[in-house]
Amino acid sequence: MEKVFAIMVAVGVPVSVIGSLLGWPEILMFVIYCLTIVALASYMGRATESLAIVAGPRIGGLLNATFGNAVELIISIFSLQAGLNGVVLASLTGSVLGNLLLVAGMAFFVGGLKFKRQKFNVYDARHNSGLLIFAVLVAFVIPVVFSTSLTNTETLDLSVGISITLIVLYLLALFFKLVTHRGIYQDPESKPKPEIEEVEEPEWGKGKAMLILGLATVAVAYISEHLVHTFETVAESFGWSELFIGIVIVAIVGNAAEHASAVVMAFKNKMDIAVEIAFGSTLQIAMFVVPLLVIVSLFTAHSMPLVFTMPELVSMAAAVLLTIILANDGETNWFEGATLLAAYIIIGIGFFLL
Amino acid sequence: MEKVFAIMVAVGVPVSVIGSLLGWPEILMFVIYCLTIVALASYMGRATESLAIVAGPRIGGLLNATFGNAVELIISIFSLQAGLNGVVLASLTGSVLGNLLLVAGMAFFVGGLKFKRQKFNVYDARHNSGLLIFAVLVAFVIPVVFSTSLTNTETLDLSVGISITLIVLYLLALFFKLVTHRGIYQDPESKPKPEIEEVEEPEWGKGKAMLILGLATVAVAYISEHLVHTFETVAESFGWSELFIGIVIVAIVGNAAEHASAVVMAFKNKMDIAVEIAFGSTLQIAMFVVPLLVIVSLFTAHSMPLVFTMPELVSMAAAVLLTIILANDGETNWFEGATLLAAYIIIGIGFFLL
Amino acid sequence: MEKVFAIMVAVGVPVSVIGSLLGWPEILMFVIYCLTIVALASYMGRATESLAIVAGPRIGGLLNATFGNAVELIISIFSLQAGLNGVVLASLTGSVLGNLLLVAGMAFFVGGLKFKRQKFNVYDARHNSGLLIFAVLVAFVIPVVFSTSLTNTETLDLSVGISITLIVLYLLALFFKLVTHRGIYQDPESKPKPEIEEVEEPEWGKGKAMLILGLATVAVAYISEHLVHTFETVAESFGWSELFIGIVIVAIVGNAAEHASAVVMAFKNKMDIAVEIAFGSTLQIAMFVVPLLVIVSLFTAHSMPLVFTMPELVSMAAAVLLTIILANDGETNWFEGATLLAAYIIIGIGFFLL
Repeated sequence: MEKVFAIMVAVGVPVSVIGSLLGWPEILMFVIYCLTIVALASYMGRATESLAIVAGPRIGGLLNATFGNAVELIISIFSLQAGLNGVVLASLTGSVLGNLLLVAGMAFFVGGLKFKRQKFNVYDARHNSGLLIFAVLVAFVIPVVFSTSLTNTETLDLSVGISITLIVLYLLALFFKLVTHRGIYQDPESKPKPEIEEVEEPEWGKGKAMLILGLATVAVAYISEHLVHTFETVAESFGWSELFIGIVIVAIVGNAAEHASAVVMAFKNKMDIAVEIAFGSTLQIAMFVVPLLVIVSLFTAHSMPLVFTMPELVSMAAAVLLTIILANDGETNWFEGATLLAAYIIIGIGFFLL
Repeated sequence: MEKVFAIMVAVGVPVSVIGSLLGWPEILMFVIYCLTIVALASYMGRATESLAIVAGPRIGGLLNATFGNAVELIISIFSLQAGLNGVVLASLTGSVLGNLLLVAGMAFFVGGLKFKRQKFNVYDARHNSGLLIFAVLVAFVIPVVFSTSLTNTETLDLSVGISITLIVLYLLALFFKLVTHRGIYQDPESKPKPEIEEVEEPEWGKGKAMLILGLATVAVAYISEHLVHTFETVAESFGWSELFIGIVIVAIVGNAAEHASAVVMAFKNKMDIAVEIAFGSTLQIAMFVVPLLVIVSLFTAHSMPLVFTMPELVSMAAAVLLTIILANDGETNWFEGATLLAAYIIIGIGFFLL
Repeated sequence: MEKVFAIMVAVGVPVSVIGSLLGWPEILMFVIYCLTIVALASYMGRATESLAIVAGPRIGGLLNATFGNAVELIISIFSLQAGLNGVVLASLTGSVLGNLLLVAGMAFFVGGLKFKRQKFNVYDARHNSGLLIFAVLVAFVIPVVFSTSLTNTETLDLSVGISITLIVLYLLALFFKLVTHRGIYQDPESKPKPEIEEVEEPEWGKGKAMLILGLATVAVAYISEHLVHTFETVAESFGWSELFIGIVIVAIVGNAAEHASAVVMAFKNKMDIAVEIAFGSTLQIAMFVVPLLVIVSLFTAHSMPLVFTMPELVSMAAAVLLTIILANDGETNWFEGATLLAAYIIIGIGFFLL
């Protein structure tokens, strides 16, 4: 598998550059761009995993989530510049749904095929549940409901106010987790684990891992810029809406890194990391990437209010409630994974038909 | 009480047949049909209880739920044939509300009058909570929200896709409960119980119980077919909507079996069975009967998309959230029962006025 | 601080009376009324705390909530008489939001700055969660959803039916807590506590505390009547909507008592009382004050159906879900407080712009 990705990167990156310069057919390039980003994301994932082993499970999880979401952030900024505001919110919705339902679902399902019951830190689960409710059911719901009685300017003011609040609370959450309450919420049972994990060898050294991470990020940025401009043609050719491309295709491509590493971690019964990747990534999208893009959009030609469409909002709210009820007890099994995947299928069909 | 039901069946079944053949007044027949089904359902409940004692609490609960819902399935198929699609979804809504709020509410309330605190398997509670959220807040909510932006054909496609997903997940849930994770999620405290239960004598032997179950089911089917055709007249005469008949009357009649056995079980402090009846029945309606009817409807003159009305959807969603928050800790008392009953009253008034 | 309040009362009450009689400028009087009520409410809080020490934590919490909400009830009745129905529901919404998000948020935050982890009775937390879901997500949601298909008379019938159900269930909840299940749901860890609390000295004797409570209540009533009539002028002068005055200003003024005592209790690590004040007060508003006002309104010129606006309803529902997910485990920390406060800010911006 690793060899396949190595070849995909070795071929994909130069072909992407050449194809974009020579103006090859857009549908061909869309496929090449997507595959190359997936392969690059796998390198980012492996580099992050190496760094994660050095840095410990919690920071490791944060690193994973950060560099997984670099892809979404980069694609979104180029989409904003191209004036595709609807696609930006759609692809962030897709990213939230993809992380909560597809990534966590796959991790729980695959991990559960090997282990009857998998446990993870119940305090982290509850902490994440609170933030998911806050981000989706408060911060995203309020502007949709209020905007029907507000002018466009007022809606934008509300969006900016909410965005700042989201980012401040996200930073406070990091401060809480890494500083004031670091190591406070340990599960008594999971204490012996760290010793065993320390023994594990990272694939790459710290320096090499960071170099690979940096190069892959630059390559993803270059390709994303060109990927965005193929959406219109692809949408027309396949009879898909741009929304569907954003919500399913971009989100799957963008989350390939998290996806791969979360499933690998679950298969190794390291559920704390798997859950941290899926939920941490969701929270970073919802509480950092989304509000950052709202603020960034103020400096572009088309400012983007924080107003999701009803299908986007309701899908995210349903996904959050389902995930919370399944994960809040700090335990999973294959069937809980299957339930999340079933929800992803249902919502996927909905957006495909939209 | 048992003698009363014996007389009701002995009188009700022949009178139903004669009355339907001779064309007696429809309002009279509506009352006779309803009472006879209630009495028949009590026989089904007692037969199921006998089988449940032989088969153990879990399979016993499934049996209870299955034969309780045979009544709804039968009535619904005849309603579909009569083109009363709105009544079908209404009576299934009523069945979900009836099981979650009325049956569970009565069981918790009556059981709680005798016992200060009643406990049941917390793992089953959480498993059921996840499925309730999945079925109602994902699978039922998505088509309502998306359908406003879809054509009728697309909505039907979405309904069929969701229905298949629901049935597959329902079968996976059975596989999970009965095969891969059978007996895995035991409450440590409740272990000594099974021994005591084994001692209990079933009312009827296995053969007799199955015979009674079979005969009662046939009788319910016959009566249901005729019951459906009295709705219009009854609705007009009493100034009720057909919706109210579906949501309250049909649901109460259809759930009499579950109702009776759940309350009896709660009064005997067998909360595992009482909860399994109420929640298992709800899940079977939502994840099996509803999607099956959507698919069956494709072969009738009027196909039925999975689109509940807003009052139906919101009532079910509110009932699910309330039940989960009350039951998720695996403990009940009389006041939690009273809360569920109060919710049933409020929603009942709403549908009565609608 | 106590001296400041003493001066504010000594000056504020006579100035309020004189100003109201002499017809001083309304904006000036609005400020004086608000400050005086806050100071009076602090006296009510301290008197209640004294009584609470005598009566024990649970009754003490109820006392706190009762006399905190006397302010809201009094202001609301005068608003009803003035025909300001929209302001009544808005200020009750504000009171629910204020108690759940601002009061609980401040208590968790301030308490959490001093103590890493604060615990309270998890059974009480779950009991309150059930009632919050019942009141807001069932009793308040149903009439909003159903009213779109109902006539005004039917909506009022539904409102009255729901109001009676709410009050009956509220009384049953008191009966449950104080009679049938008094002391049943004790946290095993918190048993040694009561002994220590008994030692605590009340600030005032029982007689003096009751006298102060009585006098302060009368003064609040007098000032409230005049406060209500300044809303229109204030709204116009500051470019605020009357809704914003109701939802933020009135609610903050009305909840000052709960606010102060909840934060003080949290700072003393008496989280059982702090939580009882915030949640008990919310429940009393939602299950007693709101339905009582619906019924009282039938005897005024403008009857008030139990139909909140969508922003009001959705804000309360979001606040309830967020609070439940944070508080249901019986544990808090500063970050959970910060999350509640962030939600209050977001919703506050929304209502400010509305």
